[in-house]
Amino acid sequence: MSERRQFRDLIDAAEAQRLIDALPIEPARAHPVPLESAVGRVLAAAQTAPIDVPGFDRAAMDGYAVRAADTFAASETDPVSLHLLGAVHAGEPATQTVSAGSCVEISTGAVMPAGADAVVIVERTELSDDEVAVYRPVAPGQNMMAAGGDIAAGTPALQAGTIIAPRVVGLLAAMGVDEVLVRDRPQVGIISTGDELVRPGETVTPAAGQIYDVNSYTVAAAVEEAGGVPVLYPHAGDTYTEMEAQLREAAAACDLVVSSGSTSASAVDVIYRVIEDAGELIAHGVAVKPGKPMLIGRFSDSAYIGLPGYPVSALTIFRRFVAPRLRAAAGRPPASAPTVTGRMLEEGRFGEGRLRLMPVGVIADAGGDPLVYPVDKGSGATTSLVEADGVVSVPATTAYVAADEVVEVELFDTDWVMPRLLVAGEPDPVVTDLLAQLTAPRFLAVGADEGRRRLRRGIVDAAVITGAESTAGEPGGRLTRRWGAYMRAGAGRSVEDALADPDVMLVTVDDRYGLHETVRAWVDDAERWQRVRTMPGLYSPVEAVRRGDAELALTTAVDTQDAVTFTPLGTAELQIRINPSRADKQGVTRLQAAAEGSLTDTA
Amino acid sequence: MSERRQFRDLIDAAEAQRLIDALPIEPARAHPVPLESAVGRVLAAAQTAPIDVPGFDRAAMDGYAVRAADTFAASETDPVSLHLLGAVHAGEPATQTVSAGSCVEISTGAVMPAGADAVVIVERTELSDDEVAVYRPVAPGQNMMAAGGDIAAGTPALQAGTIIAPRVVGLLAAMGVDEVLVRDRPQVGIISTGDELVRPGETVTPAAGQIYDVNSYTVAAAVEEAGGVPVLYPHAGDTYTEMEAQLREAAAACDLVVSSGSTSASAVDVIYRVIEDAGELIAHGVAVKPGKPMLIGRFSDSAYIGLPGYPVSALTIFRRFVAPRLRAAAGRPPASAPTVTGRMLEEGRFGEGRLRLMPVGVIADAGGDPLVYPVDKGSGATTSLVEADGVVSVPATTAYVAADEVVEVELFDTDWVMPRLLVAGEPDPVVTDLLAQLTAPRFLAVGADEGRRRLRRGIVDAAVITGAESTAGEPGGRLTRRWGAYMRAGAGRSVEDALADPDVMLVTVDDRYGLHETVRAWVDDAERWQRVRTMPGLYSPVEAVRRGDAELALTTAVDTQDAVTFTPLGTAELQIRINPSRADKQGVTRLQAAAEGSLTDTA
Repeated sequence: MSERRQFRDLIDAAEAQRLIDALPIEPARAHPVPLESAVGRVLAAAQTAPIDVPGFDRAAMDGYAVRAADTFAASETDPVSLHLLGAVHAGEPATQTVSAGSCVEISTGAVMPAGADAVVIVERTELSDDEVAVYRPVAPGQNMMAAGGDIAAGTPALQAGTIIAPRVVGLLAAMGVDEVLVRDRPQVGIISTGDELVRPGETVTPAAGQIYDVNSYTVAAAVEEAGGVPVLYPHAGDTYTEMEAQLREAAAACDLVVSSGSTSASAVDVIYRVIEDAGELIAHGVAVKPGKPMLIGRFSDSAYIGLPGYPVSALTIFRRFVAPRLRAAAGRPPASAPTVTGRMLEEGRFGEGRLRLMPVGVIADAGGDPLVYPVDKGSGATTSLVEADGVVSVPATTAYVAADEVVEVELFDTDWVMPRLLVAGEPDPVVTDLLAQLTAPRFLAVGADEGRRRLRRGIVDAAVITGAESTAGEPGGRLTRRWGAYMRAGAGRSVEDALADPDVMLVTVDDRYGLHETVRAWVDDAERWQRVRTMPGLYSPVEAVRRGDAELALTTAVDTQDAVTFTPLGTAELQIRINPSRADKQGVTRLQAAAEGSLTDTA
Repeated sequence: MSERRQFRDLIDAAEAQRLIDALPIEPARAHPVPLESAVGRVLAAAQTAPIDVPGFDRAAMDGYAVRAADTFAASETDPVSLHLLGAVHAGEPATQTVSAGSCVEISTGAVMPAGADAVVIVERTELSDDEVAVYRPVAPGQNMMAAGGDIAAGTPALQAGTIIAPRVVGLLAAMGVDEVLVRDRPQVGIISTGDELVRPGETVTPAAGQIYDVNSYTVAAAVEEAGGVPVLYPHAGDTYTEMEAQLREAAAACDLVVSSGSTSASAVDVIYRVIEDAGELIAHGVAVKPGKPMLIGRFSDSAYIGLPGYPVSALTIFRRFVAPRLRAAAGRPPASAPTVTGRMLEEGRFGEGRLRLMPVGVIADAGGDPLVYPVDKGSGATTSLVEADGVVSVPATTAYVAADEVVEVELFDTDWVMPRLLVAGEPDPVVTDLLAQLTAPRFLAVGADEGRRRLRRGIVDAAVITGAESTAGEPGGRLTRRWGAYMRAGAGRSVEDALADPDVMLVTVDDRYGLHETVRAWVDDAERWQRVRTMPGLYSPVEAVRRGDAELALTTAVDTQDAVTFTPLGTAELQIRINPSRADKQGVTRLQAAAEGSLTDTA
């Protein structure tokens, strides 16, 4: 291991941003797209109006096309009478010519007849037979729009770089443009490193250390959000030769290549050596947490960025450093990143001399104001991806953030809704059903003990706990869970037989869950209990039975498929405990109502 | 015309919103999509974790897999020595079993070997031959993640209604999900009314009163932005039978049908009667400007909304009343509409007893703060679509908004950049070239006179004017335009001949442009000048020659195609005049530098 490369001196976050901003990513090309597909794209060239809009003198009101001079003497008491020659409607040629003393009925949008230079609106007239009495004079040009009066041919109508919003589509349509030249979006090749990664949809073999590839998909989605085109390359292998060939292929086709995937140091080492040997390694390692092992470089004609391996780190680093560069390359203005300001619920200690991008959750306090809490399971956890609402940036020079300190959260999503209810504790299908009745709830399936702990610390609105009466929080309702035994369908023996057989592998949930104690009390045999294997999820024991890894699973009643049978063994009580400081919050009162079964509306 | 239907009592804006919100638009259906296409969609069902993530006990650091108990006695001065059995890397099965006194080299992400319950990080060890000295004790479970420790199988991982952001894609990928059930987006049928409308790309015949269809395209783009799927129906005709058949077809396929297009009262009347006869007309007319002639109803199994005909009105009404409903139907939270607050540059008088949605432009003052000015060419103008940045809502009860009053602008686009420079006046290709050197300029091609007027009123940063030295504003630079004569290629006679021939149709620009005076002085023949036809755009006369409507065009030098020839006749000066109150603004100083030819950078 001694030959493993060590990171060189870390550069700071500002320097990393400067280096990434200097990477040439802009695609030089442009291509035509049909108008219907142009929304959100960027005009590659200025658009000059090719025609006059409207293409003809056009009535702007319903009424009569007249020679304005004929109406100058008109008044309420002494109307002018004009002879009606006929009518012209929108979409028809005007066949009559208006001469002195005559007029033509005209609809909004219709062609002004020859000779007419104004429109008298219908409300200022009275028709009898074919004579029109006009009660109000009009000026030349009144109630009409001259040809080209909206957009004159040759006017510079739109500049290069205009983002094609719906209203820009409207102007293009008005000019008859059905195809526009738009800038190419930057092509971003995404290379997956790490032989342990398997694509979703394929079968993962846990015993071989395989896991699903997360980063390729989150990065692809984030590339798209930033205005780039993600190109996913199938994983070719972690050898030097395979990686170099893969990089060469991606660099030839793309403006930027991002490698992303493995937490495996060996895979990262390989790509690092390829870039250093055959390209240019500009930076290696940034003083930011999470995200230290970032690579910045060039390879062939493409820019290159290596993201850290943990999913939260990869996405956080991508969003902070790469997405702004990509937006600029796509010709888009900087994202108006939505933010929310709130009070920290817990103190935090830092002081590692690195910029800390701290993933946080946000929850409304009783008054509806945001409270901010760190979401930190260690950056290897993918669940942090969805339990966090955004990131708080703690400068490298800040060692301590106090509880109650006001911080700004940079939100992950534009379409963000503050969670109305934050519950932690014992997961169970009955809890899921309960929460499904509420709006924007967030549930952290951390088990009864951790739920009780977070309630005591005042972080959550409520906790779902088990066991004897608790002093944490206030009572908020009760639920009854069902639990029992799972065996393979057609196992051919009873639950009691299997339990009595010391060779039978028995699985249940681990002691983070209150259900663990319930099951233990039921088994009531210390020797048998020693041979019980515990698992980290309510459903995991059932999965183990289905896979054939275990014969008997004792856990809560979950939806199962045909391969396993369920034998009910008992019920147990779940308590909902409420955070007293948020007891009046609507989300909390609705949770209590739902637990009582008295929730009728869906507001 | 007396049989034309009159609008009944108008409902107010709040009532219109209530009626639209009550329309049943939600699509009941859901369908599976591949993970790669799921970004931005809404989960139709809760997603429970189908597997444990990780699927195995996993090393979280590089180091040695050990039995924690073996390390309890370790210290810096007295390390524990463990026998190295081999190595396990990410993506490999762990073949060794760690027994007391032994260890296995392990990489981050690798499978923990049987018997091991912790990882000692490599920095706390020293390797010699196959003995590992451990200098620091570890607790059971340290530096590893238990199977399911990230997401346990059976955990409710994502709730129904979750918007699939990049980070949600990550969680789905981690669970191996490659296809998700998402809510159908609401299908919105867009029916174009008005026989005068022609689709972009087809040929418009101005003499027949034809114009390009704008609303179908802007509404389609806005539907997409709100999370719906636009379905454009080809225009079938404005007769009762045709319209009814069209509506029936659209209503059968869509959740909402929007009619949009014509300003022609007769076309609107037809659709109004069809809805009233064969469906249900819920409201007709809303007290909002622009947008009075709005229809709300139901037809067959679909909701129906009729938008006003003018493009700005149609889009404004759609955004205000329909888009929020569509977002809700698509399962999205209300849009976090971007707003900007600024001072009004001009007073405004209202008091029509209707909610006024006033289109406005925004420009930075010298200090960079937003100034707001009304953009109102009459709502028939499509150019208002792009000259406005957003809308100021003036309540029905407000009759007067003073200059300098602070107003809130609801911006049209999320990706909005405040224009850095606002110039109005005489358009010319030399002006276009000048502005192309600057960042985010906005030019209003209103002609020299109107440019001077807007400069005097303090609205614009600068004006491009013609003629003698002006007292408006301060000098900001000069440009030289070239102008001349355009004739059809191969016309077979000289400009002088054509000019001398009284039967030759001669065209030039109208008197909004300073060029008009230049040309008039050159022609210098009052009798000939009487037979000159003027046109609303610099390029329009050239277009007239190309079309064969005129033989000789006198206008500025523009890019032309082969069909016409250009004979230079002279040059004329354009003056840039500066708004003194914004002379120090960066956009203005850069404009002056560009006019002097001294602009070197592109910042």
